[in-house]
Amino acid sequence: MDTIPNVLAQRYASAAMKTIWSARGRVILERDFWIAVMKAQRLLGLPIPVEAISAYEHVQSQVDLESIAERERTTLHDVKARIEEFCALAGHEHIHKGMTSRDLTENVEQLQVLRSLELIRDKAGAAVIALGERASEYRDLVITGRTHNVAAQPTTFGKRLAMFGQELLEAFEALEELIERYPVRGLKGAVGTQLDQLTLFGGDVEKAAQLEEKVIGYLGFSRTLRSVGQVYPRSLDFEVVSRLYQVSAAASSFARTLRLMAGHELASEGFQKGQVGSSAMPHKMNSRSCERINGFHAVLNGYLTMTTALAGDQWNEGDVSCSVVRRVALPDAFYTIDGSLETFLTVLHQMEAFPSVIEAENDKYFPFLATTTFLMEAVKAGSGREAAHAAIKEHALAAVNALRSGESDHNDLVERLADDSRVGLSREVMRSLLANKGKFLGTAREQVDGFVAKSRKVGERYPQARYLKPGKIL
Amino acid sequence: MDTIPNVLAQRYASAAMKTIWSARGRVILERDFWIAVMKAQRLLGLPIPVEAISAYEHVQSQVDLESIAERERTTLHDVKARIEEFCALAGHEHIHKGMTSRDLTENVEQLQVLRSLELIRDKAGAAVIALGERASEYRDLVITGRTHNVAAQPTTFGKRLAMFGQELLEAFEALEELIERYPVRGLKGAVGTQLDQLTLFGGDVEKAAQLEEKVIGYLGFSRTLRSVGQVYPRSLDFEVVSRLYQVSAAASSFARTLRLMAGHELASEGFQKGQVGSSAMPHKMNSRSCERINGFHAVLNGYLTMTTALAGDQWNEGDVSCSVVRRVALPDAFYTIDGSLETFLTVLHQMEAFPSVIEAENDKYFPFLATTTFLMEAVKAGSGREAAHAAIKEHALAAVNALRSGESDHNDLVERLADDSRVGLSREVMRSLLANKGKFLGTAREQVDGFVAKSRKVGERYPQARYLKPGKIL
Amino acid sequence: MDTIPNVLAQRYASAAMKTIWSARGRVILERDFWIAVMKAQRLLGLPIPVEAISAYEHVQSQVDLESIAERERTTLHDVKARIEEFCALAGHEHIHKGMTSRDLTENVEQLQVLRSLELIRDKAGAAVIALGERASEYRDLVITGRTHNVAAQPTTFGKRLAMFGQELLEAFEALEELIERYPVRGLKGAVGTQLDQLTLFGGDVEKAAQLEEKVIGYLGFSRTLRSVGQVYPRSLDFEVVSRLYQVSAAASSFARTLRLMAGHELASEGFQKGQVGSSAMPHKMNSRSCERINGFHAVLNGYLTMTTALAGDQWNEGDVSCSVVRRVALPDAFYTIDGSLETFLTVLHQMEAFPSVIEAENDKYFPFLATTTFLMEAVKAGSGREAAHAAIKEHALAAVNALRSGESDHNDLVERLADDSRVGLSREVMRSLLANKGKFLGTAREQVDGFVAKSRKVGERYPQARYLKPGKIL
Amino acid sequence: MDTIPNVLAQRYASAAMKTIWSARGRVILERDFWIAVMKAQRLLGLPIPVEAISAYEHVQSQVDLESIAERERTTLHDVKARIEEFCALAGHEHIHKGMTSRDLTENVEQLQVLRSLELIRDKAGAAVIALGERASEYRDLVITGRTHNVAAQPTTFGKRLAMFGQELLEAFEALEELIERYPVRGLKGAVGTQLDQLTLFGGDVEKAAQLEEKVIGYLGFSRTLRSVGQVYPRSLDFEVVSRLYQVSAAASSFARTLRLMAGHELASEGFQKGQVGSSAMPHKMNSRSCERINGFHAVLNGYLTMTTALAGDQWNEGDVSCSVVRRVALPDAFYTIDGSLETFLTVLHQMEAFPSVIEAENDKYFPFLATTTFLMEAVKAGSGREAAHAAIKEHALAAVNALRSGESDHNDLVERLADDSRVGLSREVMRSLLANKGKFLGTAREQVDGFVAKSRKVGERYPQARYLKPGKIL
Repeated sequence: MDTIPNVLAQRYASAAMKTIWSARGRVILERDFWIAVMKAQRLLGLPIPVEAISAYEHVQSQVDLESIAERERTTLHDVKARIEEFCALAGHEHIHKGMTSRDLTENVEQLQVLRSLELIRDKAGAAVIALGERASEYRDLVITGRTHNVAAQPTTFGKRLAMFGQELLEAFEALEELIERYPVRGLKGAVGTQLDQLTLFGGDVEKAAQLEEKVIGYLGFSRTLRSVGQVYPRSLDFEVVSRLYQVSAAASSFARTLRLMAGHELASEGFQKGQVGSSAMPHKMNSRSCERINGFHAVLNGYLTMTTALAGDQWNEGDVSCSVVRRVALPDAFYTIDGSLETFLTVLHQMEAFPSVIEAENDKYFPFLATTTFLMEAVKAGSGREAAHAAIKEHALAAVNALRSGESDHNDLVERLADDSRVGLSREVMRSLLANKGKFLGTAREQVDGFVAKSRKVGERYPQARYLKPGKIL
Repeated sequence: MDTIPNVLAQRYASAAMKTIWSARGRVILERDFWIAVMKAQRLLGLPIPVEAISAYEHVQSQVDLESIAERERTTLHDVKARIEEFCALAGHEHIHKGMTSRDLTENVEQLQVLRSLELIRDKAGAAVIALGERASEYRDLVITGRTHNVAAQPTTFGKRLAMFGQELLEAFEALEELIERYPVRGLKGAVGTQLDQLTLFGGDVEKAAQLEEKVIGYLGFSRTLRSVGQVYPRSLDFEVVSRLYQVSAAASSFARTLRLMAGHELASEGFQKGQVGSSAMPHKMNSRSCERINGFHAVLNGYLTMTTALAGDQWNEGDVSCSVVRRVALPDAFYTIDGSLETFLTVLHQMEAFPSVIEAENDKYFPFLATTTFLMEAVKAGSGREAAHAAIKEHALAAVNALRSGESDHNDLVERLADDSRVGLSREVMRSLLANKGKFLGTAREQVDGFVAKSRKVGERYPQARYLKPGKIL
Repeated sequence: MDTIPNVLAQRYASAAMKTIWSARGRVILERDFWIAVMKAQRLLGLPIPVEAISAYEHVQSQVDLESIAERERTTLHDVKARIEEFCALAGHEHIHKGMTSRDLTENVEQLQVLRSLELIRDKAGAAVIALGERASEYRDLVITGRTHNVAAQPTTFGKRLAMFGQELLEAFEALEELIERYPVRGLKGAVGTQLDQLTLFGGDVEKAAQLEEKVIGYLGFSRTLRSVGQVYPRSLDFEVVSRLYQVSAAASSFARTLRLMAGHELASEGFQKGQVGSSAMPHKMNSRSCERINGFHAVLNGYLTMTTALAGDQWNEGDVSCSVVRRVALPDAFYTIDGSLETFLTVLHQMEAFPSVIEAENDKYFPFLATTTFLMEAVKAGSGREAAHAAIKEHALAAVNALRSGESDHNDLVERLADDSRVGLSREVMRSLLANKGKFLGTAREQVDGFVAKSRKVGERYPQARYLKPGKIL
Repeated sequence: MDTIPNVLAQRYASAAMKTIWSARGRVILERDFWIAVMKAQRLLGLPIPVEAISAYEHVQSQVDLESIAERERTTLHDVKARIEEFCALAGHEHIHKGMTSRDLTENVEQLQVLRSLELIRDKAGAAVIALGERASEYRDLVITGRTHNVAAQPTTFGKRLAMFGQELLEAFEALEELIERYPVRGLKGAVGTQLDQLTLFGGDVEKAAQLEEKVIGYLGFSRTLRSVGQVYPRSLDFEVVSRLYQVSAAASSFARTLRLMAGHELASEGFQKGQVGSSAMPHKMNSRSCERINGFHAVLNGYLTMTTALAGDQWNEGDVSCSVVRRVALPDAFYTIDGSLETFLTVLHQMEAFPSVIEAENDKYFPFLATTTFLMEAVKAGSGREAAHAAIKEHALAAVNALRSGESDHNDLVERLADDSRVGLSREVMRSLLANKGKFLGTAREQVDGFVAKSRKVGERYPQARYLKPGKIL
């Protein structure tokens, strides 16, 4: 039987993310962890020669999965096999002192989580920046804002993008907070009492505490969980995936709206280089990438559900009913959000708006949206308020019905009003009012500017995000 | 980058399930489908030579994934590549007539679902049968039934197993119903109107309908969906996974209870051949398999969530926002339930009860559970009802407190009552009442018999389930 | 503090549904249950006078919640208070014999579920029938079928409705199956062994079994669960809500699509009598009811999640960790689906299509959708295949671009092709091909007929569904 | 039809929480909001007399729901009715200037959320403090730590409590962060462009921005969302409920473990004053409150699911498909977590441990847990390592089997070892090793101290949490 691949990793996730969660990548992170522990143990007085540490560091990236598997067939214990392999490569036996298997696996999995969170933060940051750029580009492109999927008031396409950008920014900041606070379990032993480390240090409570502090310093965590059991609280896994879901939500709202706009041919997610529309159906620019972003959102929700089941179900000091759940939910949640952001960035770079179609839609609806202004001007020009109001209402209804019945092929409200003496406004006056669209935009453009400024600050905080380009997507 | 494997498939699912969902297995099912369509088209008058069909059948199982991938690099279209490969192998060009890509993929995915459902039905049936066997074995083993996790009334271990068996049986029957009713999309074309098949048959509506009838007959579906869009309704995917979840629930309730019993050392999930307990901790028989069954349940809930997002979100005649969701949720849900049932069957075969520990627990609680009987007998023997009642209440409370405070190391209620003249019952009388445990069991044993009979009927309906043995689990 | 109302019940659910789950309705169902038990106990030989049963029946609907609450303040036990009230009204003491509180509450809650399922089945049936009627009405109204939210192939509005009708029909049949199979816990006592009933019948196992058979016969259940604990398996609650979710999914897919159509002004969910559009925004026919149906779907998903947590989490013979969950999830799930179907029926009765707008959309896209036909006809008329193909492709692309750029205000493909001698077809020929839309519809209309026939059969099976009209919605 | 009450509010939530979400409480918060807007508008130059504001403030708490309902029957518009009522009471017409209905409802709902979050923060803080107190009390009570629900290593009950306390503390800090960052939508108008407020201030962009700043300052928000549509992003609702779920998870893990301990009679959740155990079953101290906490967790998960559906589903500038979802999910999620914390606090105050039973369990398992120590001492005392190891292994296994088979009624490992010359340790030596339990506890007690110190800091940050006592629960 051939290997069944993980479809999320294989088709959608980036190499960087796969590296973190691959068998090989995990071995390297484990070795990172063991080395950090040795360094700390040495500093605190355990007799570990500096040459031994160097020897381990020297061979750290020599990962031979087949050799490890071979050892496991003998030892029947996966952690033991990996210990032996690393020691054989280094020619020393100083790793894993005073550690249980869980001391290794819990912490290494949290290291995978932390590195993945940082990668996602950078990509989400790149998306904020890209949204800022596109919002800036379309800052002044007036579109017909819709509520209930029906024309409501003018806005600009840039402002619409800034709106989704704002949602993403909130999620981005929540992610930053989590990364800053994310606590690691540390070396706590079988039931969390640090019995073995304490024994190793001859009962010196202070040293057992310092050990953890030093280890996490090497690895980039900000703090440890002071009091845990065999495992760290699984509500932390829930917290991680729920933050990813917030990021995904912003991408998903954007994608949903772009699919709607594509249905009206107001915009398109664009084509990838080399991709062409069907020749039989040249009009058919399917929003496949946006649909996929929405799909990823549903997938991520599934992994979120898995972590909801972990949170709040600890029995005593813990067990492994969570094992299969975490094996699936953690990597797959990260592959999903990674795939989603890769797709989102691609769409942000390729999408295009169709100003003529947008203009035609504006023409269709603006006369309705401007009736309040017409009334005000009619009164200014000397018409009676009540009479003008009644006339406008009457003609607006008639214009709508004419459009719906097919009697009229464009919005003829201006003509109808111009022909009614109760209103007292000429075609020209009304058309010039309609032409001055800036009047109807409120602070739409200033809001764009505000968001663009914020997005630039993200780029300053995370310069790596500025240069992050999506890989080629399927 | 090495392939990242699907962890559920790799570690937990059976070969039979992996075959259905593997790349190779899918190619074979596609060819099944194409052959079925050809046969039906030929019968209805399309000029497809019988030798062509034979030629396709002859090469059906020759699957060369690399060759297909090579063709895809040229055609840039996956379905086209697989058509060309199959035709090249057969030396004919008669497949895929009047079909769109979706006509192939929707139906083949439903074929994967159907075959998987049948496999799961057999395994769930095997679990019903195994529960029947163990319930029968432990039909008369009296245990202390618990509610709120506290001793409540006697029952038997067989009856407890029958109780979980009953839950599984309900889920099993719901699964049977679904398999019987499961409808397939059929050959409906781009928006569901059968335009291409109708054109193929010169506008003969009757033949287009017959075509579908014949095709599903070959493949084992019971019926087609008469009116669909580009896709079949995704609420059907939800229905499939929700039925799997019901099956999983019964296994999960059983596993949860066995973990509780193991905590009291009343029972153990047993060890696999070759597996041994820790020598340092010989008492530590961890319920790892039962914990895993509970884990699978949480995982399956995640895939259920994914399908909830598909159901009720169709836009017009459909799109592919569901694509990534179904690629993940459908195979992975089946791997999960498959792994869960493999584990469940293993536990059912290996678990053991510890009658002495069970007996000790019964001794601890039975005097409390029998106080109503003592009162009745005391009155019969001539004691005053009120006085006896007060005495029993008083002593029961004292006996509990003595146990809790450590003042007493066993339930001494009988001794306390025997020493109280208000009760008027001797130690011997009370002990013989306690010994006659059958009196306290209600219809527990008859319920076991009833369940065993039902489980045998399942074996008669599905003889293949009787001989189904779980593979070796991790 | 005023009572905080249940918003789903208060704003959306029907009186019939509220009656089942109200405090008063529950008291009546409990009395139904007690009376059924008495009748069965009497028939099986217990000394319960027929006059007593009559007396209870006579006062069954006299529900005085305040009096019951008064009694509860004395007894501090809710079931006991309701027993006393009913006995005091009837002047007898024959109810609740050999029953525990759970024997009452489990069965009565299942009675509420069953009655609610029947009510929902009737409403879902009414929706099938209404969809049949509207599908029939719009059987021949050609619309532009969309995939990926983009024009794909012609279909009819009736066929689109039949497509959603088909989805609903599947859910409806799954609901019918469940109602037919829905098993009740029965009188099983504290841990499910029927100890008390068996004692009541002097150890006669046969009579204990017959008792249950008779009771469920009176109440309308089809069968009992043979082997249970203190509670019935909670996977059954999951099954119930998952079936409701399937029903909701069909309504939700329909609503989602109608919202999309309203965005193009192709159709509207209509207005309720007395409701008017905004005078300032006469074009703004918001799809509020359809949005609400989608909202209900999300709400129901939440209750489904609650029941997923119940299923598979039984400890031993059961406990009450499910109590608060079921108190919320069961009634609220039924209020939700009830509100959804009330809204759905309202929309089905009020919605309207706008044929002129639909026709304009068809005109915009049909020339693209017909290019295959044009090619065929060009070849028939003597043009070279390759040349004609190249010309059509070229002009189709140009026509799309002209529309997008605003250069052209209608689809001028026919004119472009007519002007190109490589094609050799006149405007008239092409326009007549386009006019014969029936040719492009495949079996769309026959599928409508098929669905309409099925929907009528539902009306025959459940005549009450035919006359079911939705109440006035908010 | 009587009002169907919201069961979560009625049975479980506190008066403080109900006040926030009640009809009356909402009216008061709306008036808070209107007053804040008036004050800001006045400061920025709008002609609103200071007496008018005073007049509104004077009548703010005069809420007559019946009068409002009466007005609504006339206006057929709920917001308009409440405007009229407030103006009539105040004798002025200055509220709601330049505001749409959504400007009111979105912000007021966020105000309800913020006030509820603060209330929950205080209660979660009170639970942290109470856990600190109990952990301190049981700091030195040695218990048998369990993994896989089986005895693993000694720990203390205080440390177990600190472990759950640590989980709660993490959730608590996540909640603090959210409250600090929680952004409000502000006065943005129909599609988010602030058109009406801008018009009100004659196009002065700066003033429109200042208006929002001032309003949120009055109300206690930290910041506004710069760029939104008709609605604020619904992923914010998801974030709120996901934080509540984290809090609930810690309570739920604790409750799950206490239910397990109660099953072994090691501890009990205690009884409320006046509550008594069943006299027939005096041993039956059901963990009903802990079960309920687990139930609340499942309920909250349902509301979380509802908010997952809102997040990522925005169409354009927004619509009301979220309306029914938020009406249900937001208040009910808060009632649920509120009920859960009330119950949790009650359990924390009432629970009791049973040291004698705990000691008996320790005696049963300690000899196994101490085998490593025995080996070390045997070698020190001159025995051969291999021989001693073999002997210990052999006897440990035998001791376990004797316990399981009923051959022995206590752990006789020490006696067995004392009788084996390969080991060379006397009963007395081994018993004194076992008696020195402090040696086996690692840093358990220091971890308790660490947590207690942290819990006290919470009390310093939120003194109101220190004095918060739970109400009487059902």
